[in-house]
Amino acid sequence: MSPKKLSAILESIRQRKPLVHHITNNVTVNDCANITLCIGASPVMAHAWDEVEEMVHHAGSLVLNIGTLDPYQEKSMLLAGHAANAIDIPVIVDPVGTGATRYRTGFMGRLMEELQISVIKGNAGEIGVLAGADARVKGVDSGGVRGDLLTIAQDFALETGITIAISGAMDIVSDGTKVIIIENGHPLMGRISGTGCMAASIIGSFAAVHRDMAEVAAVSLAAFGIAGERAAVVCSGPGSFKTALFDHLSLLTPAELARDAKIRMP
Amino acid sequence: MSPKKLSAILESIRQRKPLVHHITNNVTVNDCANITLCIGASPVMAHAWDEVEEMVHHAGSLVLNIGTLDPYQEKSMLLAGHAANAIDIPVIVDPVGTGATRYRTGFMGRLMEELQISVIKGNAGEIGVLAGADARVKGVDSGGVRGDLLTIAQDFALETGITIAISGAMDIVSDGTKVIIIENGHPLMGRISGTGCMAASIIGSFAAVHRDMAEVAAVSLAAFGIAGERAAVVCSGPGSFKTALFDHLSLLTPAELARDAKIRMP
Amino acid sequence: MSPKKLSAILESIRQRKPLVHHITNNVTVNDCANITLCIGASPVMAHAWDEVEEMVHHAGSLVLNIGTLDPYQEKSMLLAGHAANAIDIPVIVDPVGTGATRYRTGFMGRLMEELQISVIKGNAGEIGVLAGADARVKGVDSGGVRGDLLTIAQDFALETGITIAISGAMDIVSDGTKVIIIENGHPLMGRISGTGCMAASIIGSFAAVHRDMAEVAAVSLAAFGIAGERAAVVCSGPGSFKTALFDHLSLLTPAELARDAKIRMP
Repeated sequence: MSPKKLSAILESIRQRKPLVHHITNNVTVNDCANITLCIGASPVMAHAWDEVEEMVHHAGSLVLNIGTLDPYQEKSMLLAGHAANAIDIPVIVDPVGTGATRYRTGFMGRLMEELQISVIKGNAGEIGVLAGADARVKGVDSGGVRGDLLTIAQDFALETGITIAISGAMDIVSDGTKVIIIENGHPLMGRISGTGCMAASIIGSFAAVHRDMAEVAAVSLAAFGIAGERAAVVCSGPGSFKTALFDHLSLLTPAELARDAKIRMP
Repeated sequence: MSPKKLSAILESIRQRKPLVHHITNNVTVNDCANITLCIGASPVMAHAWDEVEEMVHHAGSLVLNIGTLDPYQEKSMLLAGHAANAIDIPVIVDPVGTGATRYRTGFMGRLMEELQISVIKGNAGEIGVLAGADARVKGVDSGGVRGDLLTIAQDFALETGITIAISGAMDIVSDGTKVIIIENGHPLMGRISGTGCMAASIIGSFAAVHRDMAEVAAVSLAAFGIAGERAAVVCSGPGSFKTALFDHLSLLTPAELARDAKIRMP
Repeated sequence: MSPKKLSAILESIRQRKPLVHHITNNVTVNDCANITLCIGASPVMAHAWDEVEEMVHHAGSLVLNIGTLDPYQEKSMLLAGHAANAIDIPVIVDPVGTGATRYRTGFMGRLMEELQISVIKGNAGEIGVLAGADARVKGVDSGGVRGDLLTIAQDFALETGITIAISGAMDIVSDGTKVIIIENGHPLMGRISGTGCMAASIIGSFAAVHRDMAEVAAVSLAAFGIAGERAAVVCSGPGSFKTALFDHLSLLTPAELARDAKIRMP
């Protein structure tokens, strides 16, 4: 992605301030709201069956996160997802904990079957389970077999038509055609709760203003990673790191994003 | 409001530490709990139908916030509201998102019909919808027609007997008789999630120790605004602004409130 | 507890990173997740009836907190609790607000009747109600009758077989045999929301790596208290205190814990 395109996409969020509708977990919901504001978009959270569809109509994208899924939320997500598909706004899914329980894995299957999803963003374990790549993922978890992860992302994207973003020390994005590697970020991002969820909110924010979903995921993870790098320099531990992460994503200018993003095609 | 009265009301919260019962959204509920502590009151959150009425009996006021309303919470709020009315403690309502969906607007209508509400605090859009002033509010949103907002607040308060607080760059409060303008605050307060909800919690805190609800709303918005002004001076972005907002509301002394509050009658 | 044992227990969490399953309130759930990471363990929150038992099987301990209990959560907690008992992992209970409503007090009775609980951690008022010591507790609240609290903790632990931890300016722990007093901490810990809940998460973290539950509770409250002491030195108010509390618990080394813990047998 050219520096010009990178800065233009961030510029676009800051100008258009798209509304990003979330149905998400109750652990990191406040972090998701604040990070959405920091990147320049506007968050809304609503899950009542009687209003989710109407609320989706105000939004530029929909973020679904199954971190604390329950039966009420299942239906909220399906109603909102179908409404988003009907008006053709992007649906971003964070499959938190997929593989940990049959309930989550099963519901992810249902989401993928019933909805047209634009981006799924998960860690190697979650994406591995969804891709049916359990065996290979084991190796990834213990050693980081990069080649395998690239293949899993690309094959799974190709098979489903969904852009796949695998977060990790090195982030991987593929829409089946392109494969993109993002090497921004800092280990402290794994020491606080919610960075994964926040990444999905940022993807939702960019998805509301740009069409190419692989580019959307790449620029999102780069912007968030740069904020993490900067926050790590000024913090004294995970508490102050989190505070600085919000500060530095908010302070990030389009020019700085264009300059510091480490995005490449392998 | 005389400096003496302003300092006395804050003094009173700090000494009496009233319990403020909240039924609120799951996005900013932690912020509401902490801001209530910072002003000097004590928060409690409870929504189970089997206990809300009993919990209300311990409280000095009740704050209802419809930010993530769902059918379970609807009944929780009605039960708690009727219990609060029965023992005659103030009910503060934050009509988050009214106008965005028929569900929220409809439930606000029900709350206003069934309960005796002491204060409704919302932004110009939300109050405009409740007041049936949609047309005029459009203008307000795009340009800030101050005269109209003052009229809407006063007329709506007069018609309903509810004290109306409209938050914005300039806050407006009216009980139908008095109209009060509060000019404290900082634009960063609009760059983080939850400042509106926190304002309602502060109003709930003051409402538990002072009878005049227009004065309660005015002193609340002034105190919060002063904390915002101070936090803005020391912060590096929205993350550290939020941290400093809690610090500075907690550090605010009655004498400082009396000195720095910008409260006037137009 | 010997310095060697204290440092070894913290070392053990940091190496084994146990998974701590929480079913907790929606006010402080994010704080619980982050504090669990700061001590070196790994949090998971899940409450859907269809998955709680399966999730418990991945965990090293279970933390139940009734701060915003509702009927759905009641069953989640019972299902998870029975599953934890079946695989013999520790169950930690935080009886938030017990005594404030019959609903909470009643559910605590049910939890104690149906489950084998390892540790109950509450304040003097909550433990007093559970122990049926209401009369004596009144005195405790108003003046701190230390002798009584020690007796209440020991008698209640002996009677129930549950380790009792009473948090306060001076923390008291008893398993019926041993009585332990912990004198770390800082008054600012009472000025923010969630320190009680976070203490329970830390106890859950240590409980996953050490068998003696009185020692687990003591080392947890000491570690958290030391972090509070250090945070108080660097903060400017309750907002920055909370941020620093996460920093300093994360930075606390086993050697520092062994050196600074104020744990004694009376």
